[in-house]
Amino acid sequence: MLKGNAIVGQSGGPTAAINATLAGVIKGAFDCEAIDVIYGAHNGVEGMLAGRITNLNEVFKTEEDLKLLASTPAAALGSCRKKLPKMGEDDAVYEKLFDFFKANNIRYFFYIGGNDSMDTVAKVSAYAETHSYEIKVMGVPKTIDNDVVGTDHTPGYGSAAKYIATSMQEILRDCAVYTVKAVTIVEIMGRDAGWLTVAAGLPRIISGIGPDYIYLPERDFDTDKFIEDVKVALEKHPNVVIAVSEGLRGADGKYVGESTQSGATDVFGHKYLSGTGKCLELLVKEKLGCKVRSIELNLLQRCAAHCASKADIDESLMVGAAAVKNAAAGVSGKMMCFDRVSNTPYKVEPTYNDIEKIANQVKEVPDEFINEAGNDVTDACLEYVKPLIAGESEVFWKDGLPRHFAIPYKG
Amino acid sequence: MLKGNAIVGQSGGPTAAINATLAGVIKGAFDCEAIDVIYGAHNGVEGMLAGRITNLNEVFKTEEDLKLLASTPAAALGSCRKKLPKMGEDDAVYEKLFDFFKANNIRYFFYIGGNDSMDTVAKVSAYAETHSYEIKVMGVPKTIDNDVVGTDHTPGYGSAAKYIATSMQEILRDCAVYTVKAVTIVEIMGRDAGWLTVAAGLPRIISGIGPDYIYLPERDFDTDKFIEDVKVALEKHPNVVIAVSEGLRGADGKYVGESTQSGATDVFGHKYLSGTGKCLELLVKEKLGCKVRSIELNLLQRCAAHCASKADIDESLMVGAAAVKNAAAGVSGKMMCFDRVSNTPYKVEPTYNDIEKIANQVKEVPDEFINEAGNDVTDACLEYVKPLIAGESEVFWKDGLPRHFAIPYKG
Repeated sequence: MLKGNAIVGQSGGPTAAINATLAGVIKGAFDCEAIDVIYGAHNGVEGMLAGRITNLNEVFKTEEDLKLLASTPAAALGSCRKKLPKMGEDDAVYEKLFDFFKANNIRYFFYIGGNDSMDTVAKVSAYAETHSYEIKVMGVPKTIDNDVVGTDHTPGYGSAAKYIATSMQEILRDCAVYTVKAVTIVEIMGRDAGWLTVAAGLPRIISGIGPDYIYLPERDFDTDKFIEDVKVALEKHPNVVIAVSEGLRGADGKYVGESTQSGATDVFGHKYLSGTGKCLELLVKEKLGCKVRSIELNLLQRCAAHCASKADIDESLMVGAAAVKNAAAGVSGKMMCFDRVSNTPYKVEPTYNDIEKIANQVKEVPDEFINEAGNDVTDACLEYVKPLIAGESEVFWKDGLPRHFAIPYKG
Repeated sequence: MLKGNAIVGQSGGPTAAINATLAGVIKGAFDCEAIDVIYGAHNGVEGMLAGRITNLNEVFKTEEDLKLLASTPAAALGSCRKKLPKMGEDDAVYEKLFDFFKANNIRYFFYIGGNDSMDTVAKVSAYAETHSYEIKVMGVPKTIDNDVVGTDHTPGYGSAAKYIATSMQEILRDCAVYTVKAVTIVEIMGRDAGWLTVAAGLPRIISGIGPDYIYLPERDFDTDKFIEDVKVALEKHPNVVIAVSEGLRGADGKYVGESTQSGATDVFGHKYLSGTGKCLELLVKEKLGCKVRSIELNLLQRCAAHCASKADIDESLMVGAAAVKNAAAGVSGKMMCFDRVSNTPYKVEPTYNDIEKIANQVKEVPDEFINEAGNDVTDACLEYVKPLIAGESEVFWKDGLPRHFAIPYKG
């Protein structure tokens, strides 16, 4: 068993669960005989290259601290978007990084992040192999987008889905109170895949209410067909609610924002694009003349830890600890994944996959999860997502607000 | 003691607590010897005039049903925006309404709503007096805006404030992860008063983090001064977060949207106004060139029952029941209010006030609650709001989503 110290970093956009994965890695390291000290790198590899690290054994003294970290949104160690150069292109970066590893006897490298972070894992692993420095390198994915191949789902997705479904259900209640015809368009994150927007449909199979339509980027968006859909719904009941992905594109490949709002300028005369929801709001107003509004769920989708999924937080902790276990057992250069071994009862197990098989691919919502008309999701789709939002993660309230755990860099 | 039946209606924009007040009225009626049956009017006075009512004694069979109703956002009986005519102008409306009362032996009238609803309460009460029909009429205010005079605060405000403070704290965590200079502008509801925006400051006194600036409609907004403020903050740290009221206006009285975006047109050539946050986003981009985004908290502020304040929900239940008690004791034509009898420990008592003293006035955030520079709130202000967000109201989760209670009209 390779003995030494470990380092962990976070990278890419924050989620409500990325700190749970961090807590899992830290707990795993504390429990691992091979690991002496686990350091946290502030702002990912940027922090490693700049020596901005913190000894996490000194920060986390109790189980409660780790629980608090697991319930804290965003990245407690900070994030970065740095992409390492191709090997051979600028080896100075790698030399600096490995000098840092050697100086601190870092033998375990854990990186929690998105696609770019997995790229970092693969490169660090490859460089280590060709330069005879023994280090075990493991990636743990995180993304609310759920668009990573090779895993049943991604840590972070369940909590985002729970927030979206909960908010959609509340919006549906709110919109139902008046008798005047009105259309409400809810814009949900997702440039390339509709997984988050799908979650807006969950109230249908759980509470018996749901939006009238759900439009995903997996289908070409047709504005005429959309207006026809809205008309049909308005004939049935006065309060029409629609979920749309921010990434909706027409058959010409242009985002809805580009095609419906090409003339929009601000007071400085600059062109700019409104969001998809805003554009469709203006379109409905123009074509149907009824009351219409748009709501962008925005950043809260990825950081609403007060409404996190217990399933998601528990799995994120679990997969973080599993990364350490696998590394200690000699696995390196891999990405941790989830294998759904059973649906009833729902059960997942941690596994890992080769990064090369995963990188630079987008897992879209499959055909069988989208209805024929392309304006809703199927029950099979919702049954896939449902267990991922199960349970409520513990929130540590104080004076009416959730407590969070911060890991400031003390220099 | 006047004996007979009661009717209750909801009116105006929904909140996360208006159903708690309804539950309080229903519970109060069940416990009141004077009241035989309590009917619910669907869509307020519109429902009374159309005979769309439901016998609530038949709907609510258990304490749990009432608890579930209290945790349900929006208006379970539906809402309306109907304003009754001045007495003497169109008495047919009143005749119809009182025919309905007589036919159903309605002797108690409870109306939960905003300013227009209190106007309805005053008019129904006055008409009854001049037409010798004995009926006790009580109003219970609700508004997330907290801009009603004569009461320490309004039911619904605490839950909205809790959601805003919780979301702001999560946004602050999310924005802190990168080292690149960026400005995030959070737009919060409030056309005429800044009470909701104030709540964005709560994390400062509770968790030690907060937005850099808070701009309220109580102060003239100066875009040059604003840009100077942002510059100063960006020199201190990379992640600047700002809370703004949707109702910000310049010294000329024009909304920020009007003055910074007069040339904005959609693809149809129509002028339209973006929100205040979006306009300030474009302004910062133009003047400072840094990364900037805006977030509109939107409808969730008033319907996020999954994050409701226990203090608010408990008080809403209490004031609903107190309305019934007072009516049974002979009080009529009044609006229920909160009297804060103590701050440490926080304690409120229900009271009532004359509607004429309250109607058509807006309670603004007072001078001592706003800092001298007009770009932040004082600690005294935050201490006033803090007890209103205390505690977490019970949420009845099922399969990952909150359960709600619906009162459909069965005809």
